[in-house]
Amino acid sequence: MTATEEKLDPRLQQANAVLSEVEYSVVGTRPIRHDGVDKVTGRAVYGADVRLTGMLYGRVLRSPHAHARIVRIDASRAEALPGVKAIVTGRDFPQAGGGGDEDEDTGNIGFLRANMLANTKALYQGHPVAAVAATSARIAEEALKLIDVAYEVLPPVVDGRQAMRADAPLLHETLRTDSLGATSDRPSNVARHMQNVLGDPAQGFREAAIVVEREFTTATVHQGYIEPHAATALWNADGELTVWCSTQGAFGVRDSLARLLDYPVSRIHVNPTEIGGGFGGKLGVRTEPIAALLTRKCGRPVRVVMGRSDVFRASGPAPGSWTRVKIGAMRDGRLVAAEAELVYEAGAFPGSSIGGGMRGVFACYDVPNVRIDGYDVVVNKPKSAAYRAPGTTQAVFATEQVIDELAEQVGMDPIEFRILNSARHGTRRADGTTHTNIGSLQVLEAMQNHPHYNAPLAGPHRGRGVAFGYWNNGGNKSSCTISVSNDGRVQLVEGSVDIGGTRAAVAMQAAEVLGIAAHDVRPVVVGTDGVGYTSNTGGSRTAFATGVAAIEAAHDVVRQMKARAAILWEVAPERVEFAAGTFADSEDAARRLTFKELAAQLDDTGGPITGRSNVQPRGRGGAFVGCIADVEVDPDTGKTTILRFTALQDAGKAVHPSYVEGQMQGGGVQGIGWALNEEYVMDEAGRMMNASFLDYRMPTSLDVPMIDTVIVEVANPGHPFGVRGVGEAPIVPPPAAIANALYRATGVRLRDLPMSPRRILEATGKIEGVEKPR
Amino acid sequence: MTATEEKLDPRLQQANAVLSEVEYSVVGTRPIRHDGVDKVTGRAVYGADVRLTGMLYGRVLRSPHAHARIVRIDASRAEALPGVKAIVTGRDFPQAGGGGDEDEDTGNIGFLRANMLANTKALYQGHPVAAVAATSARIAEEALKLIDVAYEVLPPVVDGRQAMRADAPLLHETLRTDSLGATSDRPSNVARHMQNVLGDPAQGFREAAIVVEREFTTATVHQGYIEPHAATALWNADGELTVWCSTQGAFGVRDSLARLLDYPVSRIHVNPTEIGGGFGGKLGVRTEPIAALLTRKCGRPVRVVMGRSDVFRASGPAPGSWTRVKIGAMRDGRLVAAEAELVYEAGAFPGSSIGGGMRGVFACYDVPNVRIDGYDVVVNKPKSAAYRAPGTTQAVFATEQVIDELAEQVGMDPIEFRILNSARHGTRRADGTTHTNIGSLQVLEAMQNHPHYNAPLAGPHRGRGVAFGYWNNGGNKSSCTISVSNDGRVQLVEGSVDIGGTRAAVAMQAAEVLGIAAHDVRPVVVGTDGVGYTSNTGGSRTAFATGVAAIEAAHDVVRQMKARAAILWEVAPERVEFAAGTFADSEDAARRLTFKELAAQLDDTGGPITGRSNVQPRGRGGAFVGCIADVEVDPDTGKTTILRFTALQDAGKAVHPSYVEGQMQGGGVQGIGWALNEEYVMDEAGRMMNASFLDYRMPTSLDVPMIDTVIVEVANPGHPFGVRGVGEAPIVPPPAAIANALYRATGVRLRDLPMSPRRILEATGKIEGVEKPR
Repeated sequence: MTATEEKLDPRLQQANAVLSEVEYSVVGTRPIRHDGVDKVTGRAVYGADVRLTGMLYGRVLRSPHAHARIVRIDASRAEALPGVKAIVTGRDFPQAGGGGDEDEDTGNIGFLRANMLANTKALYQGHPVAAVAATSARIAEEALKLIDVAYEVLPPVVDGRQAMRADAPLLHETLRTDSLGATSDRPSNVARHMQNVLGDPAQGFREAAIVVEREFTTATVHQGYIEPHAATALWNADGELTVWCSTQGAFGVRDSLARLLDYPVSRIHVNPTEIGGGFGGKLGVRTEPIAALLTRKCGRPVRVVMGRSDVFRASGPAPGSWTRVKIGAMRDGRLVAAEAELVYEAGAFPGSSIGGGMRGVFACYDVPNVRIDGYDVVVNKPKSAAYRAPGTTQAVFATEQVIDELAEQVGMDPIEFRILNSARHGTRRADGTTHTNIGSLQVLEAMQNHPHYNAPLAGPHRGRGVAFGYWNNGGNKSSCTISVSNDGRVQLVEGSVDIGGTRAAVAMQAAEVLGIAAHDVRPVVVGTDGVGYTSNTGGSRTAFATGVAAIEAAHDVVRQMKARAAILWEVAPERVEFAAGTFADSEDAARRLTFKELAAQLDDTGGPITGRSNVQPRGRGGAFVGCIADVEVDPDTGKTTILRFTALQDAGKAVHPSYVEGQMQGGGVQGIGWALNEEYVMDEAGRMMNASFLDYRMPTSLDVPMIDTVIVEVANPGHPFGVRGVGEAPIVPPPAAIANALYRATGVRLRDLPMSPRRILEATGKIEGVEKPR
Repeated sequence: MTATEEKLDPRLQQANAVLSEVEYSVVGTRPIRHDGVDKVTGRAVYGADVRLTGMLYGRVLRSPHAHARIVRIDASRAEALPGVKAIVTGRDFPQAGGGGDEDEDTGNIGFLRANMLANTKALYQGHPVAAVAATSARIAEEALKLIDVAYEVLPPVVDGRQAMRADAPLLHETLRTDSLGATSDRPSNVARHMQNVLGDPAQGFREAAIVVEREFTTATVHQGYIEPHAATALWNADGELTVWCSTQGAFGVRDSLARLLDYPVSRIHVNPTEIGGGFGGKLGVRTEPIAALLTRKCGRPVRVVMGRSDVFRASGPAPGSWTRVKIGAMRDGRLVAAEAELVYEAGAFPGSSIGGGMRGVFACYDVPNVRIDGYDVVVNKPKSAAYRAPGTTQAVFATEQVIDELAEQVGMDPIEFRILNSARHGTRRADGTTHTNIGSLQVLEAMQNHPHYNAPLAGPHRGRGVAFGYWNNGGNKSSCTISVSNDGRVQLVEGSVDIGGTRAAVAMQAAEVLGIAAHDVRPVVVGTDGVGYTSNTGGSRTAFATGVAAIEAAHDVVRQMKARAAILWEVAPERVEFAAGTFADSEDAARRLTFKELAAQLDDTGGPITGRSNVQPRGRGGAFVGCIADVEVDPDTGKTTILRFTALQDAGKAVHPSYVEGQMQGGGVQGIGWALNEEYVMDEAGRMMNASFLDYRMPTSLDVPMIDTVIVEVANPGHPFGVRGVGEAPIVPPPAAIANALYRATGVRLRDLPMSPRRILEATGKIEGVEKPR
């Protein structure tokens, strides 16, 4: 975006300016978040808190089977129950239309509709089959029991590689593999096969002195956001549909509903509530379309809230994966070829985050010859969704263990080995892109020099591992308006839902431009009616792109205020300069007004001022994270204790360092969860056996040490203040780092997630397991 | 505002273009109002519908006395009642500060505070003395009974002229008359004496051949809005105060609260609900400050809703008045001098709408020599507020009867007489302003030519009267943003509360500029956090000034969309032209895109587009209304039946003619209420005896005929489409027209409002009354 790039802060004279030496007034400080009090006092309104007059309670009937043909649905007894106002099934969706936009994952609106409410088949346990709206929750639940569904139960397949076999049960009789652009002629569970090639991989491997090739698996894991999905919808008598919901993006919900319902976007109005966690799992719609169908049918507002076990069974976890990684190095340690095969479980419908896996698997390294094959495979599990750095953690778990083995075989320190091979400015990637202005080396050097890496680690059953990871970050669309109050504070209207502190991070960037305090900006998150189009909060785009929008809107305010100063001083507007929060007459040093002083005079110079912006900034700037993990294994129980954990990340300019650190710590904790405990435990019938927070074992504060963080600030020239996205990357390397640490603690390599006590005991020969480590 | 004037629609080539010949696509049509369905289905959320978690119920203890010293308030028993969470009195307001802005009426923040909650004295029956917040309405009401207030009852004065007497009870011991800028040295109930003089009135009267001088009174009357005042407030733990209320202006409430509470405007957030009528009575604060004090004390949200009798006794009715008007004419009927003395009852605190009376009393006529004396007098009635064309109906009731008498004495047709003397473009006024581009003559000519005026009126006890009136209209500040959806509809965010159909009227003006349909604009009224400063909806400013804001924001959209077309066509932006909803390349006729077509391509040309505006337009353009009334009096009961009623008004361009007609009819009905029935009936102790809709007799649909309307369209050059405000003016002439009709029906002149059956019987000698007609 040229306009933005032209506005690069003069304090950033060159791309890789050392940001810690640039002096900002607001950016880089740690004010209390604007929404903090509402959240700690319970005043904030979340999805399930919405209540409208005459509201009905929606409940969803879900398939008990992982794979079954729906022979018949008879809702007549339920319809007769007093208090039942509407019953819907998949047939209530329009069956055609849906607009020109492509489905986020597959371009197939039919799949999205069938996932929201099953069509002819139930494809996972928990798959919605029908929904009821009634005057009370009790009646709605009673009505569910009165709906008779006749199923023809089919054998399920819940493992990606098994689903690829010719004799596997087919989920979709009509699904044909799109392989490198060509469509196969027979049905398959493989939705898509993609390939990225760079250089000549075969020749590269011929030149390699050392080649390591390994296979890895990761489990289906859930984002574990605290707040279940919740939506309230009202299809008004005037045909306007209004929805209140917990989502990562009101406009995204609007777009999806428009396509699902074949209805104009502008007649759909989505108001995002506060959100109790998303991590990618609330990018798509879930309860919203069901609530919309129910309210369309009965004309009353309907609220649909999921329970915890429904969230596990029927929202969008991260795909389980199988990965084969093969890397070849020269004798001196220089990488010469790399190959990866990734099989990602999309869940019941096509569209895993295989793209993230392919982008991320070798993103950290400069390898001249690469081939990456990715397979998107349907299985009888809930349709997968984005989960923090979608698809990348799975792939990097493989790569970083292979890199660790290679370093060992070459006889190099693992960080030294990574520095030697690190991607750098100008490195070409297999997807055809080129790294620019990245902070990879700076992060690796920070790891190398960190006291943690150089501290002794005494004692048996202990080990230290490192790993390195990358995330692309996002750009996309953001809009803001900023209005100036006479007392010198401003209201900043934005469309970005605040998941991780972005109200503060965005407000601070506006404050920096305007030369006022962070708390002199009131950030207000509004719905689709109140602001220009704003893409979802996700992909680590918000602090970056909505930050750019805030900066542009602030510049628009400054431009108008300069004209006001010119009126007051009776000079040409070009004479008015603005710097450090002060308007000054360039030809008369005595004429100076602070932002607040001038704000107080708006009424006398033409009235209020509003600034606006709509941006779609490029130059988002990728982020690198390294982590160092010390572990201790209890040889009798196989329990792993994380003794020490340090995350180091290039954040570009850290707008609010505490929140950057919080993202690094949060990503670290989730990565530890993936590493050691979290998994969907499925029985033979494809039923999830641990669909509660008691049985699905996420780390608690007792399970993790205090996570140390180091923010490395390498300017992103694509942002006026050098900001990069920070939210996703921290989850990427921890499982690999812990695997590498466990190798040093136990002598065996664990290549399957989670590396649970049972797996560790199996790997160390303490018990006979169903699976042997490879 | 130069920017706006420059944008004068090219279709309006000269100021007095005949607007009915200008072709607009949207302006002038009659689409269904955007908010109609919500309002007729009961879905719209009004003040009392707001409900927050943990909300308390606020109730107000009111003085039973019209005038009393508050000796002591003992709330200890109430505080001890379980469920009572906060009790406040006037002492809970900060006693100093309040910012630099002047009080709307008097500049005295102390008076406003004391009106919201009595200080040392109760000054009218219903004056708030204390307020309670409790966990239920029942407990709050119980607590009110437990508050012991010791009063020293004082004699009240409830008539303005009596209050001016030296021996009248004094309301405010410290009040000194501000007479023509000088302050008197002894206390008085006369808050202010103002004077406007033009020419040499004494000389003028010496030249006059005929002089008529009469005295008139009008009663205290209430706006009678259906929805009582209601506010819910939450003073959050972070110090941010949020208020939801039924108001004519969220920013106005914000400003008043900031001053009353001595708190920064930007920490106060006001969200207007739908409003069930205001007519000026909801311009000020009433329940909001009480709710704010209560929530500040207990930290929980508090809702305060007034009951109907509280609304009558303790909100802001129109001031009762006494007026003396003296007008002199030459033998040929030409007016040569005019003199008026107006005494307006401000109520318990200074600040009546005396200014409106002084502006309006002779505004319709070109009189070279004028003196107007206005007196703002406090009495023991609720503090008066604005009521539709504030202060003007009272004064015009006097003027238009004197004019009628003069025409009779000169022997001219009353409309002919008015045409002879009508104000016209360039007429100077006693307040120093000059009429410009007014439609006075066109309205009078329309009256003269109207079939109603020329129809026979047979039968005894019947009479026809006419009257003429004027209202200034308002300008002031408005802000808008407009965001474009990909499907070609737009969202228009505005800060103007919609009382009388302004969502439609404002949206239509944006649609006209954008070349799309009225329903392709979604108007959204938001609170103080969501839009730039916007003044109250009132003074007949919104369709005009917020219309200008919508037009400017739409132009900002067009400007940006031209640039997008230029990108698509790869031409210089200057080459892109826009007219009638179509973008075209001025050098290539084949290149054309409608607004909707281009909107669909925003994503490919740089993302979303938002337009913004902040305006403070001058050139509001005054409005003239004439009306013709036929009445029949029942000689036995004194009951007046309105047989036929026609209102004729210069609306400039009528944006939505149905709503203009609705305003004319609504103002007509209210004027009929003033004329015939409405009044505060007070007993000797100053207590209102008819504080219910049963006893306070407003006209129902059975009391009025279908009111015919004629919209006269004389362009207002201060608006791009020639729009004038329309809401206030229609209430101004009806009481005088009916009085003139009654004179012809009965042979006597009625000079006191209301002209109730009793008054008519007294005037016609059928019964002996307490007051003789003058």
